[in-house]
Amino acid sequence: MQSSSFYAHHSPWGAYASFCLGFYGRGGGFALSDVHPPDWNVYIGYARPGQLGRLLPFFSGSGRGKGAAAFVGTDPRHDANQMNVLPFQPREITRTMTWAGDTWQAGDLTFRLVTPFGPVPPLETLDEAERRFHLAPAILAEITLDNRSSDEPARLIFAMDGMRRVLSDVTSGALLGAGTGTSVAVACLPTPEAQELLHWDIVEPAFYGEPIINRLGTQGGLVFTVPAGEKRTYTLALATYQGGIVTTGIPARFAYTALFRSVEEVAAYVLEHRERYLALARERDEELERAPLNRYRKFMLAHFTHSYLANTELLMDEQGRLIWVVNEGEYQMMNTFDLTVDQVYWELRYHPWTVRNNLDLFVARYSYTDKVKDREGNLYPGGIAFTHDMGVANHFTPPGHSSYERTNIKGCFSYMSHEQLDNWILTGSLYGLLSGDEGWLREAAPVFRDCLASLVARDRNGDGIMDADSDRCGNSSEITTYDSLDASLGQSRNNLYLAMKTWAAYVCLGRVFRRLGLAAEAAKAEDQAARAAATVASKFIPEEGYIPAVFEGGNTSRIIPAIEGLIYPFMLGDDDAVSPNGRFGRLISALKTHLATVLRPGVCIDATSGGWKLSSTSENTWVSKIILCQYVAERVLGFDFGDRSEEWDRVHASWQTEGCAMQAATDQVWSNTGTDRGSRLYPRLVTAVLWLDQAR
Amino acid sequence: MQSSSFYAHHSPWGAYASFCLGFYGRGGGFALSDVHPPDWNVYIGYARPGQLGRLLPFFSGSGRGKGAAAFVGTDPRHDANQMNVLPFQPREITRTMTWAGDTWQAGDLTFRLVTPFGPVPPLETLDEAERRFHLAPAILAEITLDNRSSDEPARLIFAMDGMRRVLSDVTSGALLGAGTGTSVAVACLPTPEAQELLHWDIVEPAFYGEPIINRLGTQGGLVFTVPAGEKRTYTLALATYQGGIVTTGIPARFAYTALFRSVEEVAAYVLEHRERYLALARERDEELERAPLNRYRKFMLAHFTHSYLANTELLMDEQGRLIWVVNEGEYQMMNTFDLTVDQVYWELRYHPWTVRNNLDLFVARYSYTDKVKDREGNLYPGGIAFTHDMGVANHFTPPGHSSYERTNIKGCFSYMSHEQLDNWILTGSLYGLLSGDEGWLREAAPVFRDCLASLVARDRNGDGIMDADSDRCGNSSEITTYDSLDASLGQSRNNLYLAMKTWAAYVCLGRVFRRLGLAAEAAKAEDQAARAAATVASKFIPEEGYIPAVFEGGNTSRIIPAIEGLIYPFMLGDDDAVSPNGRFGRLISALKTHLATVLRPGVCIDATSGGWKLSSTSENTWVSKIILCQYVAERVLGFDFGDRSEEWDRVHASWQTEGCAMQAATDQVWSNTGTDRGSRLYPRLVTAVLWLDQAR
Repeated sequence: MQSSSFYAHHSPWGAYASFCLGFYGRGGGFALSDVHPPDWNVYIGYARPGQLGRLLPFFSGSGRGKGAAAFVGTDPRHDANQMNVLPFQPREITRTMTWAGDTWQAGDLTFRLVTPFGPVPPLETLDEAERRFHLAPAILAEITLDNRSSDEPARLIFAMDGMRRVLSDVTSGALLGAGTGTSVAVACLPTPEAQELLHWDIVEPAFYGEPIINRLGTQGGLVFTVPAGEKRTYTLALATYQGGIVTTGIPARFAYTALFRSVEEVAAYVLEHRERYLALARERDEELERAPLNRYRKFMLAHFTHSYLANTELLMDEQGRLIWVVNEGEYQMMNTFDLTVDQVYWELRYHPWTVRNNLDLFVARYSYTDKVKDREGNLYPGGIAFTHDMGVANHFTPPGHSSYERTNIKGCFSYMSHEQLDNWILTGSLYGLLSGDEGWLREAAPVFRDCLASLVARDRNGDGIMDADSDRCGNSSEITTYDSLDASLGQSRNNLYLAMKTWAAYVCLGRVFRRLGLAAEAAKAEDQAARAAATVASKFIPEEGYIPAVFEGGNTSRIIPAIEGLIYPFMLGDDDAVSPNGRFGRLISALKTHLATVLRPGVCIDATSGGWKLSSTSENTWVSKIILCQYVAERVLGFDFGDRSEEWDRVHASWQTEGCAMQAATDQVWSNTGTDRGSRLYPRLVTAVLWLDQAR
Repeated sequence: MQSSSFYAHHSPWGAYASFCLGFYGRGGGFALSDVHPPDWNVYIGYARPGQLGRLLPFFSGSGRGKGAAAFVGTDPRHDANQMNVLPFQPREITRTMTWAGDTWQAGDLTFRLVTPFGPVPPLETLDEAERRFHLAPAILAEITLDNRSSDEPARLIFAMDGMRRVLSDVTSGALLGAGTGTSVAVACLPTPEAQELLHWDIVEPAFYGEPIINRLGTQGGLVFTVPAGEKRTYTLALATYQGGIVTTGIPARFAYTALFRSVEEVAAYVLEHRERYLALARERDEELERAPLNRYRKFMLAHFTHSYLANTELLMDEQGRLIWVVNEGEYQMMNTFDLTVDQVYWELRYHPWTVRNNLDLFVARYSYTDKVKDREGNLYPGGIAFTHDMGVANHFTPPGHSSYERTNIKGCFSYMSHEQLDNWILTGSLYGLLSGDEGWLREAAPVFRDCLASLVARDRNGDGIMDADSDRCGNSSEITTYDSLDASLGQSRNNLYLAMKTWAAYVCLGRVFRRLGLAAEAAKAEDQAARAAATVASKFIPEEGYIPAVFEGGNTSRIIPAIEGLIYPFMLGDDDAVSPNGRFGRLISALKTHLATVLRPGVCIDATSGGWKLSSTSENTWVSKIILCQYVAERVLGFDFGDRSEEWDRVHASWQTEGCAMQAATDQVWSNTGTDRGSRLYPRLVTAVLWLDQAR
């Protein structure tokens, strides 16, 4: 694949914690309650007697381990960064990212970060031992040196800047390693081959002299003496622990704090259960490896999974109630509904109860009832709507309010009432009809009913799509989740993308009400779906073969997400709804033509890079949405793109490893240059799990 | 006074938390469990309609409040730092640091940080209400605008980078302000004149438009609309809260967490009790203002008090036991005994129970019994000794071990067994004989006895001073607290400074044993004191008028701290011991001559700056020790330096406000340039409280 120098997250599930590593010439380290890669030097490598030590290039010249100078002044003997090592060159390194791992091989060294994941059953069905397994806020690492060709022992290290203590001080030697404060630790089980390191400049003594434990040190880790003629692998725990109340608005702790009392307990636990964790990681790795996907898709799904996990956070409030949060990458918004609705495919696969958890919290705390206004500003009854998000940076916003939306704002940061109403309906329908949780569906019936009424209230002219804005907008109007992309996708009223999502919401509501035996409501929803379909289909311009992005102002933008909404009926098994020969045949045919029209270089294929661009009038393109629309094109509409498909995937993958290499998974990319434009370090790209859904 | 551009700490007692501010062209902000000034922009100023707003210069061009770009890309409307303000120039600003405050006056603005402090009775004698008063981890600020000359209302702001939420979101409007996470908040009580601010670029809208609450913002604070023709003062709380276990080794919480549940509770509490806090601050300010000290000493005591408070930390372990920690400035070592013994004058004045707390923890956890070795390496029984410190950066080290000391180290970072043994005796004697805690003295009798035996074991040749090193040194030898200063002060054996401190320890032990009715022990201690005195006096070189710093190797260094040890008998009221006409007359006379000899330009008066340098052979000088020795010279030995004294004080004060301006209180200074050399952000300089001890 392309460049192997790019950051990735390596994270346990639900801990809002990651170990970041991967960009050459820069460090990495632990990110807690954040996802930005720190730039602490990380030292991973080995040395043999009489030879220069080798390190993976995860450090820069200016390390932070300069503590000695403050004590001893300008004594040149203590000058930092006299490491006397030869970093591996990129061409010497083979990096292999797998679904639950990331491996660097260079010389006789193999270093692997292991991030096991899999289904997480509802916690109330698990005993404490199983809860500990699923919630332990740590990942594993394996460091291997093949010393079979050497007749001398070798020194092998894993260490990093920012460490301030050795673990044996508090574990009576049950663990060896280093840590900082109460929050992070790098640990292994004791073996005569392992020694702790803590000093200002640990590498040189660890490689060439006597390993030093200096409790004033600012670099720490482990050194292993690998016997001559042996190959050895040592397992490390990279453990985190964020204790106490970590959120405001809803004061809450990490759920794992009810199971573990300290970072040392976490580290000891995962080391004790390492075989089970490693087996779980292997299971995922093999599953992805076996999947019939091209290598670019395998890479992207793996990379995106890493960043999704980094953003996950399972909290417990003061009454013991669980709260599931997925944080929004660099923006840190909590449970942004536009992400929830796209991540639902992942969560339904691995832990559907978190979808329910979100849906219920949206109803209980993050819903509101508004009025709506027509273009003249006349007010009418509105209905239930939902907030864009639940807060930002571990601050839960007050009930009924998001961190994002404000009144009297044109464009970005205005309200998204209609789209979030769609999102609750769509997410709720998928959960309610696919998870098997019939009890929830029945309990949620009144909310679905309110949602239908609210949708209808926003369609004042009866054409099935939105034409009235929430009064929360003040003097402005509603926007869609494509807020920052392009005017062609930003406006809600008369918006093709949102009209299609609204059509899907009506179709889904129809199926929900049929399942609930609510015939009148089902009929109303089905009728509205038909109206919406007719309206959108009527906007098709046959001679040009496309539907404009906005049905007003002479807009001529061509957009790929016209087709996005088709996924929901398809997921519910309503093949008729998405068939050119079905009840919405005219609409579906128009959309097929539309897609064929826009997927051309210079329109929605970027003329420079060859990648997909969501709108013909913007070079800001969003990879998660590309993937979602690819899925609709290929699986729902049955397009066969032939070789073009893999070439597109190659381009999209290269954006991640090249233009966005310093950002881990990145959603908003400039389609021409492939560089990051926004939505860095993002969870939503995990929508790529749809690629595994070959069977549906 | 000199430059008004220098950092200072502004801190509540025992919270290891400070608000740092004061260096022009740079920000400041909250430092938690650390004392390094952050560089977050702080916006304090006002604007009137039609005029450019004015801000104190506590920000730099590159603010961190650039959150908008990530959302909206390159839209130039959202470019940060278009503040459109005129910073006050240094010449427009009058800064007045008082004992419990720091005030900036510029134009019609007055901004005052208020850090009340005073006696803190033992917590077990206080009810919960009083505990809350003494332990609340917040300071106050007063922001005043004199708008009497204006016929238009003015906008007055206090805001800063790094704020992420508004307080009304979680306090139902009972507080207004901004905060970050669960740990810091800037708050005021609600008034119609106050509005909250949160945005990416808050200053311009707050000054010239509508104040914005944007929950995605990264700058936050308060804006007040001051009516036309009025002068208004608003009181702010700058509150902190560090919840959960914060230490390792001894897992412990901040003691205040048993009294307050959140940063909002803290802020509300201090605002409710603001009058009492302000009165307490006023009491201290007036006390220092009235004191018969020159202005440089008043400034230094105030500045040093600010940094001492910043380093204080009152913890509670899992059994509810209190642990007092003073952190060592930039080094973050905990309860470094060399500091404890110098800060004892402050703590005996305000909270003697913390001295006892430290003494007891040194005995219980941070003592050890060693062997001693002679220069040939032969081992002999040693005795009790104490560690250099109790840990670093909130990591308590294992029992019997410090973070600083290591085996087989030449110079810095070797053991200080003898000096720490002296320090326990000296601190214990001052506490035991001056605090009135007779019960403790009696309980501690066995420890004092062990200490005497241990001192004697280290004096193998019977000359009263140390001649055997702890076997913990390995192949090296003991050092003194002046480790990094100069070889003339670093070595323990045959060291003038340590010999004098050991003499003092014997004198103090004699008095302790007399008080305890232990005549034999008293006689032994007194005998040893006489031997030590005779030994030191015998090293005096009459023709040159000084005693060499080290009694071997032909050392000819002249050092001021020869006299340091005299303070202890003096403090205990043993005037005879420190009189040229008393039982140690020959020694005292020699030291008087010594001091007169060395206090000359080019010897121990720096030829460039005119300040004191502790050793004739080093330009590294330590301000806290200068002050201690000045006190001994003036008060104990009766030197009258005339005008020279104030000039020295002027020089020493200028080091803090000029060469060390970016460091808050700094102990290790280059005596020629007055720039910081180490021991930055340091608590020990609070020894300057001795200046108030006019009466003794």
